[in-house]
Amino acid sequence: MEKIPNISENFADWYQFVTLKTGLADYGPVKGTMIHRPYGFALWKQVQKVLGQMIEADGVEDVYFPLFIPYSFLAAEKEHVEGFAPEVAMITEAGGEKLEEPLVIRPTSETIMYKTFPNWIQSYRDLPLKINQWCNIVRWEKRTVMYMRTSEFLWQEGHTAHATRDGAVEDVLSAATRYEKFLREYMAIPGYKGYKTTGEKFAGADFTVTIESLVKNKKALQICTSHLLGQNFAKAFGITFLDEKNESQHVWQTSWGFSTRTLGGMIGIHGDEKGLVLPPRMAPVQIVIIPIVKSEEDRIAIANYCEGIEKMLKNVGIRTKTDWGNETPGWKFNQWELKGVPLRIEIGIREVEQKQLTVATRLGNKSVIALYSEVYKELNALLDEIQALLLSQAEQLLFENTVDVASEAELVAAMESGKAMYRVFFKDDTERAKTLQEKYKITPRVIPFDTIDQKGPDFMTGEEGTPTIFAKAY
Amino acid sequence: MEKIPNISENFADWYQFVTLKTGLADYGPVKGTMIHRPYGFALWKQVQKVLGQMIEADGVEDVYFPLFIPYSFLAAEKEHVEGFAPEVAMITEAGGEKLEEPLVIRPTSETIMYKTFPNWIQSYRDLPLKINQWCNIVRWEKRTVMYMRTSEFLWQEGHTAHATRDGAVEDVLSAATRYEKFLREYMAIPGYKGYKTTGEKFAGADFTVTIESLVKNKKALQICTSHLLGQNFAKAFGITFLDEKNESQHVWQTSWGFSTRTLGGMIGIHGDEKGLVLPPRMAPVQIVIIPIVKSEEDRIAIANYCEGIEKMLKNVGIRTKTDWGNETPGWKFNQWELKGVPLRIEIGIREVEQKQLTVATRLGNKSVIALYSEVYKELNALLDEIQALLLSQAEQLLFENTVDVASEAELVAAMESGKAMYRVFFKDDTERAKTLQEKYKITPRVIPFDTIDQKGPDFMTGEEGTPTIFAKAY
Repeated sequence: MEKIPNISENFADWYQFVTLKTGLADYGPVKGTMIHRPYGFALWKQVQKVLGQMIEADGVEDVYFPLFIPYSFLAAEKEHVEGFAPEVAMITEAGGEKLEEPLVIRPTSETIMYKTFPNWIQSYRDLPLKINQWCNIVRWEKRTVMYMRTSEFLWQEGHTAHATRDGAVEDVLSAATRYEKFLREYMAIPGYKGYKTTGEKFAGADFTVTIESLVKNKKALQICTSHLLGQNFAKAFGITFLDEKNESQHVWQTSWGFSTRTLGGMIGIHGDEKGLVLPPRMAPVQIVIIPIVKSEEDRIAIANYCEGIEKMLKNVGIRTKTDWGNETPGWKFNQWELKGVPLRIEIGIREVEQKQLTVATRLGNKSVIALYSEVYKELNALLDEIQALLLSQAEQLLFENTVDVASEAELVAAMESGKAMYRVFFKDDTERAKTLQEKYKITPRVIPFDTIDQKGPDFMTGEEGTPTIFAKAY
Repeated sequence: MEKIPNISENFADWYQFVTLKTGLADYGPVKGTMIHRPYGFALWKQVQKVLGQMIEADGVEDVYFPLFIPYSFLAAEKEHVEGFAPEVAMITEAGGEKLEEPLVIRPTSETIMYKTFPNWIQSYRDLPLKINQWCNIVRWEKRTVMYMRTSEFLWQEGHTAHATRDGAVEDVLSAATRYEKFLREYMAIPGYKGYKTTGEKFAGADFTVTIESLVKNKKALQICTSHLLGQNFAKAFGITFLDEKNESQHVWQTSWGFSTRTLGGMIGIHGDEKGLVLPPRMAPVQIVIIPIVKSEEDRIAIANYCEGIEKMLKNVGIRTKTDWGNETPGWKFNQWELKGVPLRIEIGIREVEQKQLTVATRLGNKSVIALYSEVYKELNALLDEIQALLLSQAEQLLFENTVDVASEAELVAAMESGKAMYRVFFKDDTERAKTLQEKYKITPRVIPFDTIDQKGPDFMTGEEGTPTIFAKAY
């Protein structure tokens, strides 16, 4: 087996190695594109299943809108087109003919959806309208970082319309809370939840709520965003309703999205020197059984024993696989560690004779437990333990790397000390954020909700500022 | 409520009316595109769920490949590019720059997938390779017929590679059988399963297996196809493996797809003068409960009764909805009939007092049944009955419209008599098929498997021919 690059010394090579060598993904032939292979796509299917159910449970209905957007739609909302025009892919020719108006491949679906909303919304009784779609999105990229930066990516985008601003704000916050719950409970990803600064918000939004986490290469990752669109698009697309007094009003809108990018975050947050580490609730294979046959005469007994365990675990819904390959047990241990499987059960003749299981966790603990009809409960408890441990390790990474900084000099010192997230009092100012980006390559990532009421002197100007986290970002 | 067009006299208007007015779909703003609304998209979700599980159970793994295909890939297989070039959409500009090589939006994914297969397949141990993806596809269309003809449509495409031709043939047939089972058991769609003629097979395939059904407008619909690709693409893309004798061989390949087009078939096969008729196993709402409150003093009793029934039915997994809208019961009856809901339960004060349900099926039967804890079993039996009846009605439509024809004169007579599918002995001949299409607008739809061993004189030339069904097609 090829040697895995060192995660601390060379994160980029490590990241490329684990995505390619574990069967997660491949590069696509067109620059900026990627191929989701079965092992990697299973992770996205788990997102679709679990997050999909959470979204549905909140009364949001799935739809599918066209891939093609007439360029004029994109141009209808001024900020929106300025934000997206530079990165769109355009169709100019189809069915052997030049098109009269070029078509844009959706970089996000606000404009094509909202053009149709006036047909669906007439009265306050039609509100709230809550829809969602799982689809592919194109935003042109020249360099590929698997999952993190790809021209085409997969996501879900939710879109809601409300009679009041309060209704829309509530929806933005509940979308962000839903994401946070899914991230923590399934992907074991913690983050700072809060507002984006003016310069970083979605093109066309009144405000954007984000969750920002930290990857092991000390770069901040914007995981998912929820936008209050206010009445900006409603005015651009004429989306009005008659209220209870029979007066015409513009609707208030939100949109929120979660993409395959998050899988990249999960890889980069939990991975270690042995390869991928998958949170048990996400792992396509939660337990791998490795038969260890040292003498041929033991083969049948070991095989039967493994089969019985696999069957028992599958019956209680644990995603289990037995590796019957010809390779040595040692090679298999490495291989499944590289693939990030949370638990490994080793079965040799001793385990058969003693009615035991030798269990190794992906995080390095090994134990021998007795086999009995409810042993799956112990294994489930171990999986839960790993799940919890991954979250707390990721929290530690995040919190240990966050440092309060009260002046530019302290910022420089914090950067030099190797910390990654700099919490400062900042008076939101797009121009000044740009200057900081040019000077230090850092950007304002998030104004965390939980410290938003603390005010203090801006770390540069002394004006009243709000705690804001700066970091180098993906 | 607007009057529904007559299905027998004006099928096209009927079809447009029911797709638009039931909330299934809307036209997209770009010609040829459609919007899948929640009620319609729920049908596709059901396909994804059930057919997806069947595909997975056969050992096929889900993947996702890029949307963009370099034009040169498409051109690598000669027949393939000739078949698809006229209908592709091309990206010539992206990220503000002209592209060096134009990109095609996938019209199907053979070429982009198979370009990657050589990285994944080295030895016979890597075979069979069986993958599937659910995605959007673009084949340019200028006129839209909802579901039936749209520039962008949704589908699943399965792709497999095998060490032997036999292995590939077996896979093509099992894919077709899987489709047939799903079509009959869930969508209540019967069809003739068999080969496509040479002129109608997939561009680049050795042969294509199809299932052809008949819609109420007497047009044949190709429901889904499975292709033996032979070694055509393997040779074009250099997909080889070392066999057990360590000799290099080209793989044998298949591909097979099932699209949103089939939903159009389901609408057009089962619909009637009152609107949509949804097979119970597909219906997003299987039972609608209509409260009938004639006197305000009964409202609470009726509401509680309805709630109890809805809860009981949902608990046993029956997709149930109670319509609490302000409209009259009569309006609601029409509305839910238009939407094709299989069963309606009417609850007035009499039903409450007598502990009864008044049950009306979408096919016109009405009965009163006693309420008891296991009444859901009777309702499930009714749903099964409707499911079976729809299949047998569709079979009747198909078989009654199929007629044996032994000469061109008999063909003309059959067409004049209003029959839709003409079974003739035909010696496969692409040129002659074209002549028939120009003269009568009919094409060879399928060479049914179940009569393939019967040989007879070609209905025009007298040469040995095989039973082949001609019809006007979508």
